Amino acid sequence: MRVGLLQLNPVVGDLAGNAARVEAAYADAAALGVELCITPELAITGYPPRDMLLYQGFAAKARAEAERLAERLAARFPTGPALLLGCPEQNLSGQGKALFNAAFWCEDGRIRTIIRKALLPTYDVFDEARYFEPGQPQPGSGVVEYLGRRLAVTICEDLWNDKDYWPHRLYPVDPVEVAVASGAEALLNLSASPFSLRKQTLRQNMLAAIAKKHGLPLAYCNQVGGNDDLVFDGRSAFFGPDGAMLARAEGFAEDVLVLELFGAQAQALPQDDLSAPAETWRALVLGTRDYLAKCGFKKALLGLSGGIDSAVVAAVAAEALGPDNVLGVLMPSPWSSAGSVDDSLELARNLGIKTRTIPIAPLMQGFEAALAESFAELAPGKGADITEENVQSRIRGNLLMALSNKTGALLLTTGNKSELAVGYCTIYGDMSGGFAVISDLPKTQVYALARHINALGRGEVIPPAIIDKAPSAELRPDQKDQDSLPPYNILDAILALHVEMDKTAAEIQAMGFDAATVARVCRLVKGAEFKRRQAAPGIKVAWRSFGSGWRMPLAAAPLP
Amino acid sequence: MRVGLLQLNPVVGDLAGNAARVEAAYADAAALGVELCITPELAITGYPPRDMLLYQGFAAKARAEAERLAERLAARFPTGPALLLGCPEQNLSGQGKALFNAAFWCEDGRIRTIIRKALLPTYDVFDEARYFEPGQPQPGSGVVEYLGRRLAVTICEDLWNDKDYWPHRLYPVDPVEVAVASGAEALLNLSASPFSLRKQTLRQNMLAAIAKKHGLPLAYCNQVGGNDDLVFDGRSAFFGPDGAMLARAEGFAEDVLVLELFGAQAQALPQDDLSAPAETWRALVLGTRDYLAKCGFKKALLGLSGGIDSAVVAAVAAEALGPDNVLGVLMPSPWSSAGSVDDSLELARNLGIKTRTIPIAPLMQGFEAALAESFAELAPGKGADITEENVQSRIRGNLLMALSNKTGALLLTTGNKSELAVGYCTIYGDMSGGFAVISDLPKTQVYALARHINALGRGEVIPPAIIDKAPSAELRPDQKDQDSLPPYNILDAILALHVEMDKTAAEIQAMGFDAATVARVCRLVKGAEFKRRQAAPGIKVAWRSFGSGWRMPLAAAPLP
Repeated sequence: MRVGLLQLNPVVGDLAGNAARVEAAYADAAALGVELCITPELAITGYPPRDMLLYQGFAAKARAEAERLAERLAARFPTGPALLLGCPEQNLSGQGKALFNAAFWCEDGRIRTIIRKALLPTYDVFDEARYFEPGQPQPGSGVVEYLGRRLAVTICEDLWNDKDYWPHRLYPVDPVEVAVASGAEALLNLSASPFSLRKQTLRQNMLAAIAKKHGLPLAYCNQVGGNDDLVFDGRSAFFGPDGAMLARAEGFAEDVLVLELFGAQAQALPQDDLSAPAETWRALVLGTRDYLAKCGFKKALLGLSGGIDSAVVAAVAAEALGPDNVLGVLMPSPWSSAGSVDDSLELARNLGIKTRTIPIAPLMQGFEAALAESFAELAPGKGADITEENVQSRIRGNLLMALSNKTGALLLTTGNKSELAVGYCTIYGDMSGGFAVISDLPKTQVYALARHINALGRGEVIPPAIIDKAPSAELRPDQKDQDSLPPYNILDAILALHVEMDKTAAEIQAMGFDAATVARVCRLVKGAEFKRRQAAPGIKVAWRSFGSGWRMPLAAAPLP
Repeated sequence: MRVGLLQLNPVVGDLAGNAARVEAAYADAAALGVELCITPELAITGYPPRDMLLYQGFAAKARAEAERLAERLAARFPTGPALLLGCPEQNLSGQGKALFNAAFWCEDGRIRTIIRKALLPTYDVFDEARYFEPGQPQPGSGVVEYLGRRLAVTICEDLWNDKDYWPHRLYPVDPVEVAVASGAEALLNLSASPFSLRKQTLRQNMLAAIAKKHGLPLAYCNQVGGNDDLVFDGRSAFFGPDGAMLARAEGFAEDVLVLELFGAQAQALPQDDLSAPAETWRALVLGTRDYLAKCGFKKALLGLSGGIDSAVVAAVAAEALGPDNVLGVLMPSPWSSAGSVDDSLELARNLGIKTRTIPIAPLMQGFEAALAESFAELAPGKGADITEENVQSRIRGNLLMALSNKTGALLLTTGNKSELAVGYCTIYGDMSGGFAVISDLPKTQVYALARHINALGRGEVIPPAIIDKAPSAELRPDQKDQDSLPPYNILDAILALHVEMDKTAAEIQAMGFDAATVARVCRLVKGAEFKRRQAAPGIKVAWRSFGSGWRMPLAAAPLP
């Protein structure tokens, strides 16, 4: 049985457009003699549709779109392949959540049967229990007979609960086990499994183990593309009954992968560089490109400070959108070093992006004059403090947003995860912007990415001076990040434990880190929660990220 | 059996402080001869603790705090009442989510038994399936024998799934039914049920129906206080076996309510004005007071535009914090009417709050000069547009944030729900601020609230000129809201359907609204999603609100 995996990049909510994407890929696969096509999870709606699912009219229209698609395919390809299509199904039982997360088996112009997802991820960025009623695996459920074979259909998380693979299971039931007990001869899975660093190795090992354990071929179709903070890396794959990966689709691109399901020989596999900087680069480029395209933007702009963060974001934007579509804005203040301007201009030349320069000293003086009397009366005797630094940053934010509003280019923010974690950033200032390209990259990973960019074979597009200088916000004379923060290697290590691995200050201190530093970092993280609540969405790269999977209270005591 | 309901206002995450709050209220109840005390749900952590629950160290410390509290109470009150205490319990089964949402029955200085919540709300603002494994109601589970009586203990949602009360049930099991089948003689419930308009009537009717159906007394203890976007209104209550509400605690305030559980006579009930403006006023005042206090702020400031939104927010702030702690800032531009200044000054005098006036014309000229060349080169021939309006608004945002930074006062934003829905507001401009007091109030409800404030018996604190003038952003000459938006009564009606009742444009059009207006409003709502993503938290008043219970995708097609 020749199977085609339709690794698609849907637009969330674009039901007709997504159906057209399925149709085009189906046509490609049909031309290759495929007998069964498989889409990613919820391919008709795109994943994750989030609260669009709460509109009953939306789910009804998604189903109607799926039905029309099935009819259209049967008309165009009378002897064409069956289609296993991800689509929400309305729950008509009168009890429980309004929908099931389902796979529609389409054959002969109609929906022959529907398989329901049983395991609903409700952690991190996932909220499936918010929308869906779980399917109830029973003997025979989820098993479809087709061309004389018994095929077990599962959806994403259904495959991730094997009792022999996971030391700690989240769910009492294993839908794969139930299907295998019902005589399944192959495993098919529709997925929308988002990218994070090291995820591909985990995923590949886990899928191989499932195939091998049950001695069954496994076809796995994953979504690709950027949807808000999530990037899906694709990499759909076939595994043999011995657990060998026999074929794999491209990473970070649409693809149609075709293989014989039973008794296939291994194909050549894409040779991806799975190092963190290489994976990060591909994820950020795709995530940025798709966010802008799916929001209707062609152009972006960003402030160029002469620092490494804005340099890396400029490089990502130039790659994602083409350099002609990127504008770098230099806004030097009296505290800006000469290097910050020269280095930015060299970076822009290297990347081929346009620049504008708008000095902000006159505006700083304007705000000083406007505020002098109020400061003197409301805070008598109080000298310059963080306030004046924030005013500068917000002047820049206002200028950048004005350029964005006037030209229709999206403003990219350039803050990194270390800054966002400890609040070393100005809300409504440098945090202004529609998309935060590197907000999930700790500063140490920003450096690694910069070096990776310079090693892509296009020369040192990021000037070494930018990589080598000591990081500085340049908001007061001779300011250096390290005057206010622990060294970034220490800071990032503590943040990884506290933010990404749910360790409390006491637990991190017990690992041998300096107690005062840990206490200070954790206090800063808590204190910056209000800034993160108003931060632009950014691209998930880490295991745990600020954004849709981070839900901390604001008016709360610090973690004990 | 005399029962005391400890209606407490916890600080989320403040384990020791919350234990102390329980202890103080327990002491009060013990002095009244109570034999059993009941706290709200998760009283030790405060509700909702959100992702603090993902830190295993947090749950462990919460339990240790509960154990110490039980010991301390036994030492202070050797023959004191039992305590039914809301606290997370670690799930040690090796399967499923890490915690249970539990009630600890504390007696004789130890935790005698633990009851687990079975029904975990995972909709709207609730994410309980993210953190908790559900309890499994079985015969006898949840029933505690005490002083010769069999008491059925349930937690919040456990009480909200009666098959005779709800036409559509969310869960297959009814823990109350199971407990009653096990011979329960009374129902006890620990709750954290947030306020929204009309919720108290719903809650009271539902609780009465449960008590009456089973013919059992019901003791219901609810949390009170503001926690981020949620306000809990308390109103803990006792119901007799005939469904009569026999006693009720205060709304929007801490209270200890004591009654004999079996055979009690009705007490006098608090006479609340349950009208929407009256309920809204109490919720906003408590929510604002608690947000500032729990975040460590004593003072607030806000921009006074001369419009009704900032007038209402100023009145709320003055009531919540005391007028001495509120600063109103007037920032007139060349487009501001004379009335906008005079009316604001009159409002401030009436409320007794301080004001500052900072004209922004010089700063507007400064930005115009800074941007002229860039605009001419990047957008040749393009005249003044929304850009210049946004620049003004962002100048004001910068000034307000500078005053906030310099004085340590929290900036309150003044936007209403109608604006936030359709994007009639400037991100990083008038949207700047830490707390959005009226962001869940449609404009029409802002007017009703203003009239209510003026009818509180303190005179017309909001000048009639502010209520009577046509709404205007005053960002260009002679601008009026109604030049850009449908009349507010129409707009709010469409928004109520689209935003609060999950109706699509097509469904609203089918109700007879003007098709073009509906299409435009729904398009504006979709287009403003990026602004809401970066909005300050506000106080939930409506059935469905922007904020933690609103999770729409950004890079998405419009709802079909």
